[in-house]
Amino acid sequence: MDAGIIRERLRKLRDAMQENGIDFYLIPSSDYHNSEYAAPFFQVRAYFSGFTGSSGTLLVSREEAGLWTDGRYFVQAARQLKDTGITLYKMMVPGEPTVLEYLKDRMPEGSVLGFDGRTLAAETGVEYAKELQGKNVKFRYDKDLAAELWEDRPALPCTKAFVLPEDISGKPYLVKSTEVRAKMREYGTEVLFLAKLDDICWLTNLRAADVACNPVLLSYLLLTMDHAYLFVQPDALTDEVRAYCKENGITVMDYEKTVAHISGYAPTGNVLFDRSNVSYTVFTVLRQITLNRGHKLINRPNPTLLLKACKNETELAHTRETYLADSAVLTEFLYWAKHHAAGLTEFEIAQKIDGMRAEMPGFLDLSFDTIAGYGENGAIVHYKPEQETAARAEAKGFLLVDSGGNFKTGTTDVTRTIVLGELTEEMKKHFTLVCAAMLRLAEAKFPEGCTGRNLDTYAREVLWAEGLDYQHGTGHGIGFVLNVHEGPQNIRWKTAATQPDTPLQKGMLVSDEPGIYIEGSHGIRTENILEVREWKETEHGKFLCFAPLTYAPIDPEAIDPAYLSAKDKEALNRYHERVYELIAPRLKDAEIREWLKEVTRPL
Amino acid sequence: MDAGIIRERLRKLRDAMQENGIDFYLIPSSDYHNSEYAAPFFQVRAYFSGFTGSSGTLLVSREEAGLWTDGRYFVQAARQLKDTGITLYKMMVPGEPTVLEYLKDRMPEGSVLGFDGRTLAAETGVEYAKELQGKNVKFRYDKDLAAELWEDRPALPCTKAFVLPEDISGKPYLVKSTEVRAKMREYGTEVLFLAKLDDICWLTNLRAADVACNPVLLSYLLLTMDHAYLFVQPDALTDEVRAYCKENGITVMDYEKTVAHISGYAPTGNVLFDRSNVSYTVFTVLRQITLNRGHKLINRPNPTLLLKACKNETELAHTRETYLADSAVLTEFLYWAKHHAAGLTEFEIAQKIDGMRAEMPGFLDLSFDTIAGYGENGAIVHYKPEQETAARAEAKGFLLVDSGGNFKTGTTDVTRTIVLGELTEEMKKHFTLVCAAMLRLAEAKFPEGCTGRNLDTYAREVLWAEGLDYQHGTGHGIGFVLNVHEGPQNIRWKTAATQPDTPLQKGMLVSDEPGIYIEGSHGIRTENILEVREWKETEHGKFLCFAPLTYAPIDPEAIDPAYLSAKDKEALNRYHERVYELIAPRLKDAEIREWLKEVTRPL
Repeated sequence: MDAGIIRERLRKLRDAMQENGIDFYLIPSSDYHNSEYAAPFFQVRAYFSGFTGSSGTLLVSREEAGLWTDGRYFVQAARQLKDTGITLYKMMVPGEPTVLEYLKDRMPEGSVLGFDGRTLAAETGVEYAKELQGKNVKFRYDKDLAAELWEDRPALPCTKAFVLPEDISGKPYLVKSTEVRAKMREYGTEVLFLAKLDDICWLTNLRAADVACNPVLLSYLLLTMDHAYLFVQPDALTDEVRAYCKENGITVMDYEKTVAHISGYAPTGNVLFDRSNVSYTVFTVLRQITLNRGHKLINRPNPTLLLKACKNETELAHTRETYLADSAVLTEFLYWAKHHAAGLTEFEIAQKIDGMRAEMPGFLDLSFDTIAGYGENGAIVHYKPEQETAARAEAKGFLLVDSGGNFKTGTTDVTRTIVLGELTEEMKKHFTLVCAAMLRLAEAKFPEGCTGRNLDTYAREVLWAEGLDYQHGTGHGIGFVLNVHEGPQNIRWKTAATQPDTPLQKGMLVSDEPGIYIEGSHGIRTENILEVREWKETEHGKFLCFAPLTYAPIDPEAIDPAYLSAKDKEALNRYHERVYELIAPRLKDAEIREWLKEVTRPL
Repeated sequence: MDAGIIRERLRKLRDAMQENGIDFYLIPSSDYHNSEYAAPFFQVRAYFSGFTGSSGTLLVSREEAGLWTDGRYFVQAARQLKDTGITLYKMMVPGEPTVLEYLKDRMPEGSVLGFDGRTLAAETGVEYAKELQGKNVKFRYDKDLAAELWEDRPALPCTKAFVLPEDISGKPYLVKSTEVRAKMREYGTEVLFLAKLDDICWLTNLRAADVACNPVLLSYLLLTMDHAYLFVQPDALTDEVRAYCKENGITVMDYEKTVAHISGYAPTGNVLFDRSNVSYTVFTVLRQITLNRGHKLINRPNPTLLLKACKNETELAHTRETYLADSAVLTEFLYWAKHHAAGLTEFEIAQKIDGMRAEMPGFLDLSFDTIAGYGENGAIVHYKPEQETAARAEAKGFLLVDSGGNFKTGTTDVTRTIVLGELTEEMKKHFTLVCAAMLRLAEAKFPEGCTGRNLDTYAREVLWAEGLDYQHGTGHGIGFVLNVHEGPQNIRWKTAATQPDTPLQKGMLVSDEPGIYIEGSHGIRTENILEVREWKETEHGKFLCFAPLTYAPIDPEAIDPAYLSAKDKEALNRYHERVYELIAPRLKDAEIREWLKEVTRPL
């Protein structure tokens, strides 16, 4: 993007600010639902700054403009902001002000901060309001200046919604809503407002494709004790979905008028909402309508969160089958990569696995952008190969591929690190330790009440003992035909004090993905998805265990048995035996079956 | 105790309640400092109820009386309360009311609840006040009715204080108080009130023997930015201690007048205190004097807590030597027990080890009542043998001995389970798994920031994998010439959400004491004390490790190598090799040295 264009856009933005009496205008990166990926419609910050990273905040005053982003993007942001007149502020770097510190320092007494309140997290807005009240700063948060200024702005995403049939969802909306209402009652509330898209989709059994990689429907939902109001774009609805909603007593309202509708709503009792999942605009409206009626606004995690996380038997059956199908395709890809990846770019390699998944029955979309990192790029945890800059794989070292799909019967996620040729002894050691780490967590037996904070060290112990570690969580929850990253459970040894630590429960899915990343050299990650199952009850308590959903070989060329305990070896042999048993019958090509037999042979 | 005597005491108590306008009188079990053990002076609940358990609350109204205690004491309490007219309320049993529920149910509008506010935790008092305000209940908390009614009441403990010399404490009071004041400043406070006895003793480097097994001085301390006021009984002070206080600018005040003095104190700024460690009386006075002056009362963990937990190099050197001396005596005891315990009672066995410790140089007291549990009594976690009821050990099964001492150079704690004769295969399996659990935690390497919640599973993993578990924490912090149970760190997989989870840090001491308890059959616990040390720094972070302080053999007769991994075996052999190296030179008796060589031989 030409810096002159950005300067011109900023000039127009400042004119509009002046017209609207706004002194500082804030542009966050989020959509209206704090989704993991923001659609082109929401790329307002990129439009006005030229900075295209996934995370960043632009702040424009009459004289200055600043962009805040994190360490992943310092180099890219500096390049893209050059000559735009926008100052780069580096997040989490000592001495650099935060957005709030900047505002506290620069905003004059009684000045006006403008922003589109639908794109700012409620928690952030509340904090800013509190911290800036001493300066008597006013908020103008009902104005999306991009609506007037952004020519050729892409449309709001609007894909056709569809119903997940009961033989797939395993639980009809009417049962789910009864369960949610029981929780509302337990919390002393009569109204629930949902803004989290995957929660709304889980509850209604509706799906769409409004967020990249997330099969969700842009919507809000207001649930009372006897009604449900679904705010959705009219064009998203088919006749089938309209009929389904009517049948289920769900009143359909216009998405674009959500705020206006809610503002006029008179709750009959306390209102339940999850402050970490609503925008500042929604929070403000909910507070107003609740207090107006003398009721309370109760801030608690959405009751849908835990219900959604614990998959029902039908969801589990579909998930298991979907992972077997996905694992078979991945196995074919691994065979292909071993033989053909050297010489191709990471981008081409990612295209290959993406194309293979796209041909699978029931394929909806990728569940996230495929990571294919060769050599030192494997050490960049959130690496995404771009066509222009992707590295070319050679017949040596490691290729790391983290990929997954959304299907009509489940959501997959898997990582394998593939040996393309010669390895150093250190690479083998690292690969073997990561393999042991992954297996040890998968083998865990633990009593009810255990959380990911307790269990994370099952994976890390073997790395820590060698002075190694990885700077990401060991695992995240996974949705069912929904988001690949789903709470509330996770496998992390450190969690924020404010984050509740949720015990693992039967039917939860978690990823198990330890890694080792050596900057400038190589990166290794091995990821299976696990299902939480009941194990046994003894006089010492009720115990749970994991069962793998993923069945794909772990490259034996990089295994150095010297770094495996007897138990590790046994666990790997047992796992590989099951991989062959379950996957071989799904492989059409006899040569690949033969190869699978070879790579899954016992150590 | 004759029930008639109790009824007579209750009659007099009710007369005194009437005279003082009190409708309900509450008698908790605590001393003024919420110490782990309450001195005879504080056994008011036992005096009025006849119930002598360590934990319980008596509530007396004009017509009724109730006693609340926990599961450990249901049988004993039912027996001791018989015919007294006091109703037993079982804590944590569904359907039984809590004290607060009882009060809410029974107290009439506007009635008066009396108690000695110095013996009630501030948190409890505040909760009661909040919950009973709807009924307009008034508190009369300045009246200790036992002061008038309890004839021959034992005196308040008052032992002679002594100074821990600098070559033992490693850090003079003036340095410690400077560190504490830096924390006070960081918290925006100018005054600190300390009620926690071990915190006061750590800060002042004073010790005494006012609480059983805790070498502490009954005292309060008020620290300002340039003064310190120590409230202490005049008789506790020797000339040496008076001179020491004067030298260090510590003004000595009368302990019995603490509340009166504090009530008249005018703080110059915000006041820091730790609500979980002060009584309701102290809290109320602090709140009053702070608000009177327009300052804030800041509730945070005592800044002494973490400073005390991280032992300095001098403390560590003394601790290491003290544990070696203690381990040598324990080894002699183990030899004795293997040969002579069968035929003796648990009480006599406890007397033996207690007597051996009492003869050690620098001995002050036991650090807790010795647990010597034979056979099925080993499965009772907090078992204490009494002369009349102790079981007699036989030449079979296990004897569990958990014991420790306070010395002028450290505080010890150690558990060994001793084989007295024939064992079942299951007993050997359990013993071996507990040994592996203990060693695995001891062998842990972990990055800075790790807490006991992360590491607890290092010990439990091997038990959980067999469906086994133990219902207590794996470890607690330990004081230096102070309390054997010391915070803030611990090794527990479950901690209350309200309890901060403190990362392990260099110089901290923790116990490592997994166990298996099979009711009616046997109990096993093996406990070493560990010191947290720096291990190494790599590109992945700064790592810590543990080093054992305890060096005593783990009975090889109960080890079944089938339940040990190669690493476990290696760790056990390495540990036993060090036990022999370090302890053999300290044993005078050649026969015991020979025996030690034998029991520490490699597997």
